[in-house]
Amino acid sequence: MNLLIIGAAGMIGRKLTARIAADGGIGDDPVESVMLHDVVTPVPPQASAVPMQTETSDLGSPGEAERLIAKRPDLIFHLAAVLSGEAETDFEKGYRVNLDNTRALFEAIRSVGDGYRPRVVFTSTIAVFGKPFPATIDDEFLSAPLTSYGSAKAMAELMLSDYSRRGYLDGIGIRLPTICVRPGLPNKAASGFYSNIIREPLNGEEAVLPVPETIRHWFASPRSATNFLVRAAAVDTALLGDRRNLSMPGLSCTVGDQIESLRRIAGERVVARIRREPDATTLRIVERWPENFNTARANSLGFVAETSFGEIIRIHIEDELNGSFVP
Amino acid sequence: MNLLIIGAAGMIGRKLTARIAADGGIGDDPVESVMLHDVVTPVPPQASAVPMQTETSDLGSPGEAERLIAKRPDLIFHLAAVLSGEAETDFEKGYRVNLDNTRALFEAIRSVGDGYRPRVVFTSTIAVFGKPFPATIDDEFLSAPLTSYGSAKAMAELMLSDYSRRGYLDGIGIRLPTICVRPGLPNKAASGFYSNIIREPLNGEEAVLPVPETIRHWFASPRSATNFLVRAAAVDTALLGDRRNLSMPGLSCTVGDQIESLRRIAGERVVARIRREPDATTLRIVERWPENFNTARANSLGFVAETSFGEIIRIHIEDELNGSFVP
Repeated sequence: MNLLIIGAAGMIGRKLTARIAADGGIGDDPVESVMLHDVVTPVPPQASAVPMQTETSDLGSPGEAERLIAKRPDLIFHLAAVLSGEAETDFEKGYRVNLDNTRALFEAIRSVGDGYRPRVVFTSTIAVFGKPFPATIDDEFLSAPLTSYGSAKAMAELMLSDYSRRGYLDGIGIRLPTICVRPGLPNKAASGFYSNIIREPLNGEEAVLPVPETIRHWFASPRSATNFLVRAAAVDTALLGDRRNLSMPGLSCTVGDQIESLRRIAGERVVARIRREPDATTLRIVERWPENFNTARANSLGFVAETSFGEIIRIHIEDELNGSFVP
Repeated sequence: MNLLIIGAAGMIGRKLTARIAADGGIGDDPVESVMLHDVVTPVPPQASAVPMQTETSDLGSPGEAERLIAKRPDLIFHLAAVLSGEAETDFEKGYRVNLDNTRALFEAIRSVGDGYRPRVVFTSTIAVFGKPFPATIDDEFLSAPLTSYGSAKAMAELMLSDYSRRGYLDGIGIRLPTICVRPGLPNKAASGFYSNIIREPLNGEEAVLPVPETIRHWFASPRSATNFLVRAAAVDTALLGDRRNLSMPGLSCTVGDQIESLRRIAGERVVARIRREPDATTLRIVERWPENFNTARANSLGFVAETSFGEIIRIHIEDELNGSFVP
């Protein structure tokens, strides 16, 4: 099987690449080659059981999508996106990357026209949902996004289902929960604090908590995100019918639950590095986000996430901190 | 108020134009001018209380949307579409007209950038919904279309809400029921028989019924369609919040109910002109269509449709047959 990963330089792209490099395959299928694509040059893992090449270009340039699929990859991960904040401040860039480039990829695949029908795994987002919504969002609740990011992703989801229904590609869209604990530097995104308040204290650094502990949200670890992608690559899409987009499982918990889990795992001194600094702007954004999901369809298809926030913290300590932290 | 009607040559466009010509305004607002646009030349009503001009062009040609809004219409009806059957057989044309041309219009409006923010009334469709769905579809049920027509319309709905949320335009999307009784010649669309079995017998002609009488569907008259458009032009869109698309009210009834109403109004001889000729292909298409809606949001905003199929037949006899039929 030959793979193309678009958006390979991003956080999830790097995790997925590392996983494939380590496993040498996807599920039970051996992988012969991987093409890593992004607008910035992706860095392949140093040790890989699979040959990896890199391509650096703008997917939206004329002919670029056609060039990327010229070798007929059997499996395409399309992870490239302009995220929520940037898509809101740069309207044109958001639609260009999140909608037009996705369509350019789908059109390039459709234009082959010789029966080529690759599996396309597309990362979508819970931002396709907007208030008012019920405390628990089920698989039949409408997409009514409140950001241009969520709008373009919801449009791409519709395209994914339509192109799949017509047999042009074999698509599956996975709506990721908020990924926590995000590795790397503190993030200024409105959602950044959800990871900051765990990652920074474990590093011996102070972190700012801008919202009350009662705020509830929907999480999965980076390891789960990779598991979702690998599962989506292998799942029998006939079981999806014509609805090709799935809300992924996750963990619903409050900021208070996050902090309690950190206390149990890392102790009071670590938790004491969280500084409360209420910020009305952040609160207004965060209050509009989903709190919980019933992901019955994804569950029935074998997608699995964490069941406690403690598990999410332990995964972070294992995968990012080599098993230790600053007590 | 200055109006632009895009898709003015179509059945609903002509009805709307005639209504504005007769009323001289929209609701309580006088109309100073109307520009009628379509790909085929629209024919203005012979007597009109309002000056009307026509434009014939392809909305998708470069610069055409900009040219159409150069005079800054206060109110734009965007009714132009490639319908279900053609969008399914000509994939590229369907997306071009139903999605790209709509976006071209929205982008032309956004690009003005001087605070210009016209009301845009967009006609969408119950084809944004696809099986499996409940017997009654409510205002929070997901859009999961099973046609490229429904997919492009659902994408345009998302754009309409996003452009409205951002203040680029003041949009309202109305999802029309199946319009019945359609005037004109018998229609080969899969939905054609719903009108044919009423219109043709009233004309003294035979009509073919290809499905069982138990089939249930969702209807409104052409007069109601015009009422929806006029109401959408005048409604306080602040009441819509960020969800700018509404399923319109209608009447849920079976083919048997249609025929019973025709019998009561026009008599047994008229009904006897309906010939049963079961067609499995038509049945397979029609079985996938919605049967009933709970349109609580639209109802609360003052949108009203017929409450009996007899009313729909009487409207047809009044509006299209000058009050008489072939007994």
